[in-house]
Amino acid sequence: MNILIAPDKFKGSLTAQQVCDTIKCALLALNETSTISTLPLADGGEGSCELLTKFSHGTFTTVRVHDPLDRLINAAYGISGNGSVAFMEMAAASGLQLLKKEERNPMITTTRGTGELLRHALDHGITKIYLGIGGSATNDAGTGMAEALGIRFLDAHSNQLKPTGESLRYIQAIDTSQLHPRFADIALTIFCDVDNPLFGPHGAAHVFAPQKGADEKMVTTLDEGLKHYASLLEKTFHRSVNFLGAGAGGGLPASLQVFTSLTVVPGIQFIMQFTGLEEHVKQADIIITGEGKIDRQTLSGKVINGVAQLAQKYHKRLIVVAGSCELSAQELENLGVSQVITIASEHISEDYAMKHAAELLKQRIREALLQNLTV
Amino acid sequence: MNILIAPDKFKGSLTAQQVCDTIKCALLALNETSTISTLPLADGGEGSCELLTKFSHGTFTTVRVHDPLDRLINAAYGISGNGSVAFMEMAAASGLQLLKKEERNPMITTTRGTGELLRHALDHGITKIYLGIGGSATNDAGTGMAEALGIRFLDAHSNQLKPTGESLRYIQAIDTSQLHPRFADIALTIFCDVDNPLFGPHGAAHVFAPQKGADEKMVTTLDEGLKHYASLLEKTFHRSVNFLGAGAGGGLPASLQVFTSLTVVPGIQFIMQFTGLEEHVKQADIIITGEGKIDRQTLSGKVINGVAQLAQKYHKRLIVVAGSCELSAQELENLGVSQVITIASEHISEDYAMKHAAELLKQRIREALLQNLTV
Repeated sequence: MNILIAPDKFKGSLTAQQVCDTIKCALLALNETSTISTLPLADGGEGSCELLTKFSHGTFTTVRVHDPLDRLINAAYGISGNGSVAFMEMAAASGLQLLKKEERNPMITTTRGTGELLRHALDHGITKIYLGIGGSATNDAGTGMAEALGIRFLDAHSNQLKPTGESLRYIQAIDTSQLHPRFADIALTIFCDVDNPLFGPHGAAHVFAPQKGADEKMVTTLDEGLKHYASLLEKTFHRSVNFLGAGAGGGLPASLQVFTSLTVVPGIQFIMQFTGLEEHVKQADIIITGEGKIDRQTLSGKVINGVAQLAQKYHKRLIVVAGSCELSAQELENLGVSQVITIASEHISEDYAMKHAAELLKQRIREALLQNLTV
Repeated sequence: MNILIAPDKFKGSLTAQQVCDTIKCALLALNETSTISTLPLADGGEGSCELLTKFSHGTFTTVRVHDPLDRLINAAYGISGNGSVAFMEMAAASGLQLLKKEERNPMITTTRGTGELLRHALDHGITKIYLGIGGSATNDAGTGMAEALGIRFLDAHSNQLKPTGESLRYIQAIDTSQLHPRFADIALTIFCDVDNPLFGPHGAAHVFAPQKGADEKMVTTLDEGLKHYASLLEKTFHRSVNFLGAGAGGGLPASLQVFTSLTVVPGIQFIMQFTGLEEHVKQADIIITGEGKIDRQTLSGKVINGVAQLAQKYHKRLIVVAGSCELSAQELENLGVSQVITIASEHISEDYAMKHAAELLKQRIREALLQNLTV
C-alpha cells in the first residue's frame, strides 16, 4: 500500500515537514509495511519559501539589507540546489513583522530591502526568482525595490525622491539609465492570492494600508500617490499597471510589471504544480493531509482543499489530521474526507495542544489506526 | 544543533531511505530538538537509480523490453520530476539477475533491452540519461543496445547479425542510416567504478565473462570478437574505443562512445555531487552515516568513505551506524569516526539482525544516545 503524507504546517506549532515526520514515525512505529512518501506543502504564504528551497535541495543565504524604516537587518532567501533559482519572501526584508506596532506607517516605509535581496540574487547567477509578497509593511508601489536596482525617481526639480508611499505623488520623472543590467532578463514570479487593483476603492491603499498603520487621511494620500505613479508608468512605458493583483504587497507588482518580466500566480496552485502533487496523489492509495486549524477558509485556496480536489479526481481515500476542525460532517463529506483525526478535545486546552502538538498527534494517529484495525 | 543523516543502504535489509527514517524516528522519539536532515546515498551501484529518481522528485515508468535471452519482460526506469532526465540501470533490462544460473551465457546474451529503455526515453522527451552499468549478463559490446536504436550490424554477405557476443567477430559493416535521430544529441552519462579496457588480458571478456557463464574457450572467442569490433569502430568512426572503463557492462561503453555523446563518471563521486552532499555536510554539526557491513572495501570508493572525507574536511563529528563493522579502532580513527553503533553482537545471529534491522537499529541508537547523555 502506498501512503502519501502531504500536509500544510500546523501554524504556531509544527512546520509541514514536522507534521510529515510525526505522522510517518507514528505509522512506522506500528510496523506499517506500506511505502510511505512525504510531501510537505504550503499555500504560497508563510513557510512557502523554506519549503520550496528544501524541495529543490537548496540552502539559505543571509544578506544585509534595509528594513522598511531603512535600518540594516539580516534577511535570508533560499537558493535551489543547482544554484539557479531563488525563493524569497518580501516579508523577510520589508515585512510588518519587522516593525513594532507603533512604528507602522505606510507613508514612510520602503521596499528597498526587497530590492536588495533581488540585487543580491542577480549578482549571484540566479536566473529565476519566486517571490512571496504577503505580510508587507509598505505602500510604495515597489519604488524602494526599484531604487535598490538602480532606478531613480525624480521630482519636478529633478531632485531624487526617497522611495516611500508619501513620495509617490511627487514623482515626475523616472531615470532608468542605471538599472541593473540583468533585471530586465530575469524570470520573476510572484505568489499572489488577492485580486485587488493598484488604486481605487479596492486598491492597495484602501484595502491594505489601514492594517499597515495608515489613518483615513493617509489612505487618501497614498491612493492618490498610487494613481499618479500608475499614470506616469503608463505614459513612460506604455504598459497598464492597474491590473488585478497589482494592489498586493503595497503595489510592488506595478513596478515589477514595467521593470522586469513578471508572472503572477496563485501560491497554492504553483506549489501543487512545483512539487508534482498530482503525480504523487495518482501513485498513492491513501492520502493523509492536514492543517493546524480547519475552518471555512479551508474550503477556498488552502492546502487541504487542493489535496482534496486531487484525491477526489483520482478516487483516493483521504484522511485529514488537524489541531482542530470546525467543519460539519456534510462539509467534510463534500471534500471527500473519509476520516478526520484531531488533537483538540474537551480535555485539552488549545495552549497545551499547540505546545505538545507532535506528541499528541502521534498518539491520536496510533489510536485511530488501532481502532481501524479492530473495526 | 544540525544533524545530517546520510547513509548507504543496509544491503539485504534496509534501503538508504529506510535507514534514514529509522535513525530520524529514533532521534525524534527522544524529544531531540535538533534540526534533522536526511540524505539517503548510494555508490552508483544497486539502488542508485531509485535514489536519484526520488531525489529529483521523479517517478518510475515500466517498459516492455527484451531480456538478455530475448524474452519479453517488464523493466522500469526513473524519470525526474521535471520530465527531462532519466535514471536507468542496465541490470533492469540486461542483468544477470534476470537469468537462472544455467541460462548464463555471454555468447548469446544481448543488451537489446537496454537499448529499448534508451529508445523509450528518447521518444518521451528525455534530454539527459544516467545509466548504471553494473550487474550485466552480456558481452556484446553494446551491439544489442545499438540495434534497438536503429543500427544494423552486417556480416561479409551483408546479412544482418544478431547482436550478441558471439556475433562480434563476424561484423564487417555497420549501417547507421536508421539510427534514432535523437540518440546522437542526448547527453548520456554512465556510472562506472572499474577501469578495465574493452579487450585484452584486463578487458571485458577475460575479467568479467567467466562470472557471466563463459568457459575458457568462450572467453578467447569473446575477446577476439571485442578486438575485431573495436578495430571496425575505429576504422569506421575514427574514435578509439579501447579506453579504460570500456570493459564495464560487457563492453557497452564502446558502442555508446561512437553512437552518442558519452560521459563516464565514478558512481559515488557523481552521487555526492548530484545530491549536494558537501553543502549539507558544511551546514551540519553532526553527521550520521552508515552501511550494512563495514569492511576494508569501505575504505575505497564507498559511501562511508566519501562522507568521512567531507566530514574531515569540515571538521565535523562523524557517527557511523552499521549492521556489522570489521575495521579496527585505528582504521576508524583514520576515517575520522568518533562513534560506531552496530547492530551485530554475540547474542544476535546475522539472519535475525537482517530481518529486524530497523527495530534493532532504533534500539541501539537510543541506547547509544542515552549513554552519551549520561556520560
